[in-house]
Amino acid sequence: MTYRIALIPGDGIGLPVTEAALQVAQKAAPGLLDCVTFPWSCEHYLQTGRMMPEDGIDTLRGFDAIFLGAVGWPAKVPDSVSLHGLLLPIRKAFVQYANIRPHRLLPGVEGPLRKQGFDILCIRENTEGEYSGAGGRVHVGTPDEVAVETSIFTRVGVERILRFGFEQARKRRGKLASVTKSNAQKYSMVFWDELTHQIAADYPDVEVSHYHVDAICARMVMAPETLDVVVASNLFGDILTDLGAAIQGGLGFAASANINPTRSAPSMFEPVHGSAPDIAHLGVANPIAAIWSAAMMLDHLGAADAAARIMAAVEATTAQGIGTVPGQDRTEVITAAVLAALD
Amino acid sequence: MTYRIALIPGDGIGLPVTEAALQVAQKAAPGLLDCVTFPWSCEHYLQTGRMMPEDGIDTLRGFDAIFLGAVGWPAKVPDSVSLHGLLLPIRKAFVQYANIRPHRLLPGVEGPLRKQGFDILCIRENTEGEYSGAGGRVHVGTPDEVAVETSIFTRVGVERILRFGFEQARKRRGKLASVTKSNAQKYSMVFWDELTHQIAADYPDVEVSHYHVDAICARMVMAPETLDVVVASNLFGDILTDLGAAIQGGLGFAASANINPTRSAPSMFEPVHGSAPDIAHLGVANPIAAIWSAAMMLDHLGAADAAARIMAAVEATTAQGIGTVPGQDRTEVITAAVLAALD
Ligand SMILES: CC(C)[C@H](C(=O)O)[C@@H](O)C(=O)O
Ligand SMILES: CC(C)[C@H](C(=O)O)[C@@H](O)C(=O)O
Repeated sequence: MTYRIALIPGDGIGLPVTEAALQVAQKAAPGLLDCVTFPWSCEHYLQTGRMMPEDGIDTLRGFDAIFLGAVGWPAKVPDSVSLHGLLLPIRKAFVQYANIRPHRLLPGVEGPLRKQGFDILCIRENTEGEYSGAGGRVHVGTPDEVAVETSIFTRVGVERILRFGFEQARKRRGKLASVTKSNAQKYSMVFWDELTHQIAADYPDVEVSHYHVDAICARMVMAPETLDVVVASNLFGDILTDLGAAIQGGLGFAASANINPTRSAPSMFEPVHGSAPDIAHLGVANPIAAIWSAAMMLDHLGAADAAARIMAAVEATTAQGIGTVPGQDRTEVITAAVLAALD
Repeated sequence: MTYRIALIPGDGIGLPVTEAALQVAQKAAPGLLDCVTFPWSCEHYLQTGRMMPEDGIDTLRGFDAIFLGAVGWPAKVPDSVSLHGLLLPIRKAFVQYANIRPHRLLPGVEGPLRKQGFDILCIRENTEGEYSGAGGRVHVGTPDEVAVETSIFTRVGVERILRFGFEQARKRRGKLASVTKSNAQKYSMVFWDELTHQIAADYPDVEVSHYHVDAICARMVMAPETLDVVVASNLFGDILTDLGAAIQGGLGFAASANINPTRSAPSMFEPVHGSAPDIAHLGVANPIAAIWSAAMMLDHLGAADAAARIMAAVEATTAQGIGTVPGQDRTEVITAAVLAALD
């Protein structure tokens, strides 16, 4: 059995971390991954006028999974091109509705909080809501200008992400936190609250809490150990997972999976960090988030053992103090340590 | 000179903290405040069917300032009533467009972060944006249900809050962080970014940074000392200020002012915390956020000396370890210590 993987290293530090992640994955699961690399990136845009070819989505559809390094180079290419021309369309086209992001401290990593023990799994809705792209502007450039941006939430969209969250909670510590802002947004967020109540009835074994997004942000900092699975909308999940990355020591440790649970299309795995063009030339990008994301990919493809061995190797590496301080170790030093720990 | 103050203690811990704040303010500025108390609250709603009388806004308009404890008692009254029937309409009706929330550690308070030194002033847009209340639901209760929620940003609304932020930055360390999510929300947030660029031209002495909301949440936890004035939309400001409250030790320390900078209507001062109905009977509500908010009120009314004396007394109190640990000291013990420190 081999799986066909589309690699999109992207821009900046996306390239070295993708290479690192692939080396580790190939060693942990020899022969399992058959990779094709696509040069789709801001560089590609500058040459071709597109982040990916017109048939890019169709090309990707034939793969078993996608691994993305990072895209974006704001000084050269506006976000409206780089993100809306690649990352966001892939998430939507392949109905990767569950964006899964684990937040815990790896051994040896000293996060910014005094508190050390927490293990949170954020499940972010990835296809609609505040990222629907609906809106417009009138009277542009005049004193009367108005911009509107509309969040669209559908029952199918909200239900499936909540059910996914409940299933995950069942496999973990049985606690689910549903995040809204229903005290201020009375259409979308009240709807989300109602669906949470309804679906909770199917999961009597899961303990449900309702938080407003402001309150759960505070909780992630004051009492992260009280959280288990956190389910949130596209925007709130985005915010919570950067905060989750922060409390776990930084974006260098934040992995993610954009999952299509029905498997009707490929899922995509990517570190949460961006392309960091400002530090891309320094050679100190931390590959751990990318390696962790590759482990999530193997797990999704059914190679749970290889995934577990990668995570054990990552933990052995950070426990030695390698890769634990941002900017301290070179990418290849960290990668070599993880590869060695796989032996 | 006396100022007429409308006191709305509200619900739960709103009552004791309002009393504490007023005692301190009266002692710091004897004879300056002429207070009228309004019983508007969830209790009031249960008796009268309204959070405040129909002419509540008109009544308040005659005052120089409003002091609000906290409203809300979700078990008895839904948020849609308690907040949309009092707090949010006051902010909008009186064009209190600048919600100011200071975040720094008081002496003796050990926050959740390892880092100790930071001093952030969040300026939150308070009248439009994601809290516009526009939206709707169709096919309610069916599998096809869709809910939409529309954020409305106007040039007048965004410009005035940005200018207010730039003015504050000028009075402080000269740094302004503008918060958007323009890489995902391409109408409202791109508009905000454009206006930030335009207005920045009028403030060449202020150093401007642009952050996405996810990135600045991470920064508030990883490197809060790098931030000075932070300007954000209604929702993003809500999120950032709860996070700000968390890093300053909790909601017991988070003060706020809802300012109408034109002074065409009264401004409102309120601790950021809610009514905390679950702990309201314990007598351990921390009045410091409310006392700090009262100091902001005195400052706004022109009594800068009295405001400074209150803050010195608060700092003397927390430096002794009184009121620094949530739930440890009784409300009246903390209040007595602040009153004593005013002598
Ligand atoms: C780059 C940006 C559009 C993206 C998002 O907000 O989804 C990123 O922040 C993420 O979290 O994956
Ligand atoms: C109670 C709620 C509507 C309110 C808000 O979000 O504005 C509160 O969280 C605040 O920050 O003042």
